[in-house]
Amino acid sequence: MKLITLLTDFSDNDGYPAIMKGVILGIAPDARIVDLSHAIPPQDIRLAALLLGRSAPYFPPGTAHLCVVDPGVGTDRRGIVARLGSRYFIGPDNGLMTLLFRQALQEQADIEIFTLENPAYQLSPVSRTFHGRDIFAPAAAHLVNGKPLSAFGRLVNDPVLLDFPLPEKTADGWQGEVISIDAFGNLACNLEKKHMAHPEAAQICIKDHVIKGLSRAFADRRPGEVCALLDSFGQLSICVVNGSASKFLDAAVGEPVRLIG
Amino acid sequence: MKLITLLTDFSDNDGYPAIMKGVILGIAPDARIVDLSHAIPPQDIRLAALLLGRSAPYFPPGTAHLCVVDPGVGTDRRGIVARLGSRYFIGPDNGLMTLLFRQALQEQADIEIFTLENPAYQLSPVSRTFHGRDIFAPAAAHLVNGKPLSAFGRLVNDPVLLDFPLPEKTADGWQGEVISIDAFGNLACNLEKKHMAHPEAAQICIKDHVIKGLSRAFADRRPGEVCALLDSFGQLSICVVNGSASKFLDAAVGEPVRLIG
Amino acid sequence: MKLITLLTDFSDNDGYPAIMKGVILGIAPDARIVDLSHAIPPQDIRLAALLLGRSAPYFPPGTAHLCVVDPGVGTDRRGIVARLGSRYFIGPDNGLMTLLFRQALQEQADIEIFTLENPAYQLSPVSRTFHGRDIFAPAAAHLVNGKPLSAFGRLVNDPVLLDFPLPEKTADGWQGEVISIDAFGNLACNLEKKHMAHPEAAQICIKDHVIKGLSRAFADRRPGEVCALLDSFGQLSICVVNGSASKFLDAAVGEPVRLIG
Repeated sequence: MKLITLLTDFSDNDGYPAIMKGVILGIAPDARIVDLSHAIPPQDIRLAALLLGRSAPYFPPGTAHLCVVDPGVGTDRRGIVARLGSRYFIGPDNGLMTLLFRQALQEQADIEIFTLENPAYQLSPVSRTFHGRDIFAPAAAHLVNGKPLSAFGRLVNDPVLLDFPLPEKTADGWQGEVISIDAFGNLACNLEKKHMAHPEAAQICIKDHVIKGLSRAFADRRPGEVCALLDSFGQLSICVVNGSASKFLDAAVGEPVRLIG
Repeated sequence: MKLITLLTDFSDNDGYPAIMKGVILGIAPDARIVDLSHAIPPQDIRLAALLLGRSAPYFPPGTAHLCVVDPGVGTDRRGIVARLGSRYFIGPDNGLMTLLFRQALQEQADIEIFTLENPAYQLSPVSRTFHGRDIFAPAAAHLVNGKPLSAFGRLVNDPVLLDFPLPEKTADGWQGEVISIDAFGNLACNLEKKHMAHPEAAQICIKDHVIKGLSRAFADRRPGEVCALLDSFGQLSICVVNGSASKFLDAAVGEPVRLIG
Repeated sequence: MKLITLLTDFSDNDGYPAIMKGVILGIAPDARIVDLSHAIPPQDIRLAALLLGRSAPYFPPGTAHLCVVDPGVGTDRRGIVARLGSRYFIGPDNGLMTLLFRQALQEQADIEIFTLENPAYQLSPVSRTFHGRDIFAPAAAHLVNGKPLSAFGRLVNDPVLLDFPLPEKTADGWQGEVISIDAFGNLACNLEKKHMAHPEAAQICIKDHVIKGLSRAFADRRPGEVCALLDSFGQLSICVVNGSASKFLDAAVGEPVRLIG
């Protein structure tokens, strides 16, 4: 299967993702395309990298992840195609693939990265403002058609990787923070099971709230109650049952979260 | 054709529907997936059931409708797979398939329902917060791959079904209510042609407005005018021509609607 | 490949585009469907025509563009199917295909247009409010299945075409206007390279702002700065680097834009 996922900050409103799909299907008519999201806030590379890192493990081996959150479009920042174990990444070299890169390192999987420079695999002319259409979509299509990575450009040994905030050890636990917020208003934190000696006895402090003990499911608490649990990606999540923790706690990405125990 | 529709309250923002698609395509690479909607308000089982009931008749026989609006995820509520005549339903047993169930009863079609318990058709481990990914998506994929319903679990004879509000007979007509509002602001009511002796002479009362006679098309009235018509699903709809009846009348789901004649 | 694009003002919320896809896949199970956008503001035929004109050139020859922005649904306005060179259009005859029509004229390509009247290629009964489902979706499916245009109805020689605002020559340049605004807040204008003698020296005036010289890429200016460039569709675009020109300038569609030089 020739499977391509698509992640951008373009929104679904203006047809930009659709134009990329038109370009892909003109080159690889049998490609399958799945939208990861087009609702990344403009230029939020970090959130896109997180979402890609969470999603990619659930796609079949060989999937090509095409990502365009690209504030540097039209400058001399590189475009790249990468194989990270059994996954592929296509997009600007600005850190979007950071978590895929780390996962591949952890799995001791092969990594190879090339620039996207070969005009044979680009639209002509190439605009200075829409490389998603002119460079990245054609590259993804040619890639799933079987072109080797080395056909696209030169070897890259120094991809841009982002530093994500890591929790810090404290006297009685860890100091972390909120790293993403979903449409339900659930607050995902950079804290995991490995940071907790006794999850059922842990205390979570955010703003003036103290949450005692982790729940196992949303419905373990009463509607409207603030709770914490390990979410389906293994991260600590602060939630309001049938409500929005983000609104209730007035909390944004970066909000400090203290874990005791 | 292996056709799966997807209906959730996940929003399109955070990649959750895409992750379910990744899981499906890993198991059933030739499945076709159509998004019904991911904009159901969080936990609004009732609206999801309505939307599913309206949409399903327009899909080909054999379509599998995968629905995840699931406030009880992680509790002991059951997951089910159902065959309702020529349609399939996969999701939590919380009433989402109520209208499909009723339609099958009306058509005197076969119904069979099984629990989703067989770990062979689930991801491992199963999280307590994302059964859409871990249980329902794999079940839908295995179902369209040809697995019999009985392979998934035990027979269910008592599925959860919702009571939808029914209109009440009055001295001069019917008392109903608004049951859903679409993005145009059109108000769909639980009143149908069968409730009207003379549609062209019927009067519709909502808030302080009296609408005299049903229109046949939106453009039968002037822009900005409040009108009523039988919508394309056979239900009474209250509209503002080229405008939003919801905003203009400040009306929400549950707003009483009186039909005279 | 049987490729259909879908452009409506239905929103993604209520399942209307999905219902159209169900109808299509019931008739043409191997059709591929790409959503152009469902976020056209209600009844905004003009914006839909623009978006279609920008997108269609990036789809492979033979693509069928199904467009439903249809305030006249249920009246005697015609439904049409058109071949415009190597592209197809299906939708109401209200001007939606104006730019496809002009592009075909410029390319001296064949154009043929027929009404959609043959009940053999419609659902039965046909509603008065949802021709997207009952007439246009079945027509698109039968078209990609190979039905000739003449099978659908009668020849049309007078399709409805829209007048788009054209810039006017002034003593020192051109007077144009904003014609669309994307989700980034970029303002697309009806001014192009051909209107500029020396793009690098051109001055762009909008409201109280004077932009001196065109940029080549967003990142040529500092974040927060107002700039102008030729966008990837060849149109003058007024932008705020990493921001929203629409919000910053409080500018809407129709805002006058003066080009000097």
